Amino acid sequence: MRQTVISIDAMGGDAGVAAIIGGMAKSARKNSEIRFIVHGAADQITPLLQKKPDLARITVIRDSDKVIAMDEKPSRALRSGKGSSMWNTVESVRDGEAMAAVSCGNTGALMAISMLRLRKMPGVSRPAIAVLWPSRNESGKNIILDMGADIRADANDLLQYAIMGASYARNALGLKRPRIGLLNVGVEETKGRPEIQEAAGLVASVQDSADLDYIGFVEGSDLPSDRVDVIVTDGFTGNVALKASEGTAKLFGDWLREAFNHSFLARLTGLLALRSLKRLKKRVDPRRFNGGVFLGLNGTVVKSHGGADAIGVSAAIKLAFTLAHNDFAEKLAARVASGVEASQDALREASEKDGE
Amino acid sequence: MRQTVISIDAMGGDAGVAAIIGGMAKSARKNSEIRFIVHGAADQITPLLQKKPDLARITVIRDSDKVIAMDEKPSRALRSGKGSSMWNTVESVRDGEAMAAVSCGNTGALMAISMLRLRKMPGVSRPAIAVLWPSRNESGKNIILDMGADIRADANDLLQYAIMGASYARNALGLKRPRIGLLNVGVEETKGRPEIQEAAGLVASVQDSADLDYIGFVEGSDLPSDRVDVIVTDGFTGNVALKASEGTAKLFGDWLREAFNHSFLARLTGLLALRSLKRLKKRVDPRRFNGGVFLGLNGTVVKSHGGADAIGVSAAIKLAFTLAHNDFAEKLAARVASGVEASQDALREASEKDGE
Repeated sequence: MRQTVISIDAMGGDAGVAAIIGGMAKSARKNSEIRFIVHGAADQITPLLQKKPDLARITVIRDSDKVIAMDEKPSRALRSGKGSSMWNTVESVRDGEAMAAVSCGNTGALMAISMLRLRKMPGVSRPAIAVLWPSRNESGKNIILDMGADIRADANDLLQYAIMGASYARNALGLKRPRIGLLNVGVEETKGRPEIQEAAGLVASVQDSADLDYIGFVEGSDLPSDRVDVIVTDGFTGNVALKASEGTAKLFGDWLREAFNHSFLARLTGLLALRSLKRLKKRVDPRRFNGGVFLGLNGTVVKSHGGADAIGVSAAIKLAFTLAHNDFAEKLAARVASGVEASQDALREASEKDGE
Repeated sequence: MRQTVISIDAMGGDAGVAAIIGGMAKSARKNSEIRFIVHGAADQITPLLQKKPDLARITVIRDSDKVIAMDEKPSRALRSGKGSSMWNTVESVRDGEAMAAVSCGNTGALMAISMLRLRKMPGVSRPAIAVLWPSRNESGKNIILDMGADIRADANDLLQYAIMGASYARNALGLKRPRIGLLNVGVEETKGRPEIQEAAGLVASVQDSADLDYIGFVEGSDLPSDRVDVIVTDGFTGNVALKASEGTAKLFGDWLREAFNHSFLARLTGLLALRSLKRLKKRVDPRRFNGGVFLGLNGTVVKSHGGADAIGVSAAIKLAFTLAHNDFAEKLAARVASGVEASQDALREASEKDGE
């Protein structure tokens, strides 16, 4: 039987090692193909694994006593992170003993270490972080990138994000020809910053070679829309848009709870409405959308939310597994390589036209 | 008795003239100080006013047969908009016969006409649109600008936005010393684009002269936060963040409705929970937050949502009235003038320090 090995960082999450082991156990129960290499403090991991013999059987523990703190600066993590659980988690992918890595640790440090050890793919100048967001699409999910790997992005970076986002959508959501939109302040062609307008031409030119449908500009309100699958933007805008949406969702959730706590009668109807409220909660549960995928590196790394519990961790592991199982890293590299060619052709054509 | 005259554009809204007149009637019932000049097709306005004698008594109709369409380009609106209801609505403020203007029409055209006729305040290079957003603050509202008047903003523009936003918060929300945050991808001082880092120094330097508390960087998740009153960003980021949040709120609202429509039992509990659900609905009702205020012009213009109904229109009118009643335009001009001075002092000091 085929086995797919996932490398796991047991340390660095806010919810502790137990949440990570709990997430691994959940994933293992649903998936007989999965195997784990788990990095971290063996004296914490071993007793937890002993209680889960089924999980212990498919897991190798790699002891490391160093942990990268949540507030550690990426530059410091690079200098002194060697031998830490995060570093070793990435190293397992680099060495080829695991096909994807998952960590709940510090995003900046994880990206810095991943870039250093896995290196950028040829043709990619800025890696991106792609996240999932609740949507009206059949899958219930849209993909948005960049979520903040880099605050800048020129037209060519946005093109790379479109190609990488499409490949991610194919392999994670099973969409054959993902629909790509460029995030802008209006859908008219004349809207937005120059780099976005330039990117529009580039993305349109690689539609066939990159197997994607470019649908034009989309607006912030399209984040959950069913007219698009992948929304492309720079890391500054992506980070702000997603955090603003999360903040609003949280406010509404809190106010919904308060509305059902307002009085004895409200609490009573809240109890009666529990099934309906739970149906909503499940649909928008951030744990189901957990997992930011680093795109543009030679290897798959999934950043789980720092505060993820076992359910959240298992969603991130499932994502890593799906991508590993589909040989995503290789497919992505091929897509990026042919995308570079196609866009160079497009640029050449454009400049020849200008010269006419 | 003091009278405060508001100039109203009766045309251009998606909900028709009746929604505008309905909104005016609502405002008039709650406020004996208010008077209206209403611009638009007299043959549509007159019969509606005849049914509301109390409103008719405090309203002057100014007939205009030209309407600026929702999809008209701002440049065309400037060339051929003279004599339109929107143009005349702004003109009433310019002439001094009204103290503020309200229009449901096309945002781009309204901004272009307002800039042409009212002119920018001395010291302001880019006007901004400030909007209200649901928050955990006591007022239930935060202010966010720029919502998309201009997609660019340098450090000095962001400083102007901070000063103008603070003055708006004082006059619209009654906050003595508003707390200002600069929108960024993290709260650490080293985060973000150079212009935001530069703006941080400038805003901090005018805290006392502009009567504001600069609280540092805020993130997207702080849009509804109670640690800030005014969130300052460029028009591109502001537009995307707000529309993304609106889109998410709408998705959750729709899914909440679906959850209570799922089955007969769910519909039944939904009926029982109606009071609680209505309490939530009222709190997040976008109509209560209707009204984008143009800041940085010689006169107050409020852009109402195009699709606003009578309740939404009356919220925008109330906002215009509150600002007019507080002599906002004059206070804002004074704040901007002293802000220009203070920031020039700060810039001079900074450059002298650099030269040492």
